[in-house]
Amino acid sequence: MTLPTINDVRVAAGRIKGIAVRTPLLRNDALDEATGAKVWVKAECLQRGGAFKMRGATNAIAALAPELRKRGVLAFSSGNHAIAVSTAAKLFGISAVIVMPADAPKIKLDTTRANGAEVVTYDRVKESREAIGAKLAGERGLSLIKPFDDPNVIAGQGTAGLEIGEEISPDIVFVPASGGGLASGVSLALPNARIIACEPAGHDDIARSFASGKRERNAPGIRSICDGLLTEEMGDITYEIAKARFERVVVMPDDATRRAMKFAFLRLKIVLEPSGALPLASLLEGGVDVKGKTVAVVASGGNVDAETFISALNS
Amino acid sequence: MTLPTINDVRVAAGRIKGIAVRTPLLRNDALDEATGAKVWVKAECLQRGGAFKMRGATNAIAALAPELRKRGVLAFSSGNHAIAVSTAAKLFGISAVIVMPADAPKIKLDTTRANGAEVVTYDRVKESREAIGAKLAGERGLSLIKPFDDPNVIAGQGTAGLEIGEEISPDIVFVPASGGGLASGVSLALPNARIIACEPAGHDDIARSFASGKRERNAPGIRSICDGLLTEEMGDITYEIAKARFERVVVMPDDATRRAMKFAFLRLKIVLEPSGALPLASLLEGGVDVKGKTVAVVASGGNVDAETFISALNS
Repeated sequence: MTLPTINDVRVAAGRIKGIAVRTPLLRNDALDEATGAKVWVKAECLQRGGAFKMRGATNAIAALAPELRKRGVLAFSSGNHAIAVSTAAKLFGISAVIVMPADAPKIKLDTTRANGAEVVTYDRVKESREAIGAKLAGERGLSLIKPFDDPNVIAGQGTAGLEIGEEISPDIVFVPASGGGLASGVSLALPNARIIACEPAGHDDIARSFASGKRERNAPGIRSICDGLLTEEMGDITYEIAKARFERVVVMPDDATRRAMKFAFLRLKIVLEPSGALPLASLLEGGVDVKGKTVAVVASGGNVDAETFISALNS
Repeated sequence: MTLPTINDVRVAAGRIKGIAVRTPLLRNDALDEATGAKVWVKAECLQRGGAFKMRGATNAIAALAPELRKRGVLAFSSGNHAIAVSTAAKLFGISAVIVMPADAPKIKLDTTRANGAEVVTYDRVKESREAIGAKLAGERGLSLIKPFDDPNVIAGQGTAGLEIGEEISPDIVFVPASGGGLASGVSLALPNARIIACEPAGHDDIARSFASGKRERNAPGIRSICDGLLTEEMGDITYEIAKARFERVVVMPDDATRRAMKFAFLRLKIVLEPSGALPLASLLEGGVDVKGKTVAVVASGGNVDAETFISALNS
């Protein structure tokens, strides 16, 4: 297994330029006062498509050999990865087939279709998305764009970290982790920073993996409002990088995440989805000593429906 | 009367550097698709203090002679100007007295006090804030920082336009107008852009002034959710600039503003207060032909309470 390096992240940065946007790194007085640190928020909610996923999808498609790329791409996703791959495919002028569960959020199905992708739905309980995908890929010569366990996807997500490092030299970075594409990519891009991986309670496989020394899985069926962080387990590549680079894992309950969404609303004036607010919750309530440090928080996305957002504002 | 010029805006930009932040100019695919234009949103909700007012307050305080400045400043305000002046004064290490109505929003009273300002409250009905302010200013030698009708305040607000012009060359700019400090400053900074001033229904004094050819006032007591745009009339300076530079005035009802707040939530992932969303409402529903144009929208602030925001999300 070849692990991606910071050089792959640098190559990715060149490839995604003009497609993914360079998101702002926000400063906020209230956040500094609340933590005693100098805090910068990488606002990936302001990324094209509303989440960091555009970075990896764009890099993975750009990295395909032209003759393969023109045949089109395939992805499995119920959420932001579907939107990211379909958006990137549209910008490259190629076709995309996205295999999505029939019960995926309607807004995500609609957005993916609006991007011109062919959406193939399946029944989560009765059908295998892998079998559907393999059949389609074989028939049409489509290239699979994995959601996280791929060197080009990891390097693409890492460009968020590279951009942070071009503006500041963080001592500590809070970043959400589930499949681990973003957190591992950012850790490669910022080799001198202490990486705090953030997980929602009930999906704390990385914390348990660090405790047991072997890769753990999440039990099926446990819910969290952090709908972007419900992967069953890390990938082979992301787990290797995590072991080498994550200093620790902070596990936060949903109510802390809701309070962080509200803080972002009241103080930062940005809309964060639960998964995007989890690192902020981890900074504010996770018990990590950050006093006097330069801290970066990766606010990974803002794709949240009004109902969930209102429940956070009322919390 | 000497009107400020683009050179004053350039001087202001140098003075506010490192105090007010350079806010991002956001791009969004959905906004382009909805309008047929290439739209950029100047996200002043991400400004220090959550609104553009920091720019003018900082420039006005920086412009004071040092021996005057050290005696402290005075402002009248029930809202964002109070927060801006108190924040800027704190950063300059000088004292600030803010005369605020006793029934001002508690969060704004608290924030102003938390910035270290001395808050003097008065009864809107029974007392004159001008008399209270004049007495305090005379006794202590405080300099009054006006909310809009001051060349340094106008030049300071104009730095938002200067930053837009450093990144794009907009054909059309949508900007909120009430006292007119921001809109007139931005118009000075972008001399080649068509300026569309945006007003809330019920407070359409500028539209009526343009129709009648003389400066009109708003009737007292008419409410709008755009609480940052309820000034009785324009100032002498801002009205002169408006006559020369505003191409037209768009007047929007509150329900269109609520829909724009919701659009900003769903698509832009930023929190806008009603006054900050009004220019977006004017772009989306104001009937201005923008097809094929490069458009800038000044989203002036994000200081909104949860209740008002929820009412917009439910609209």
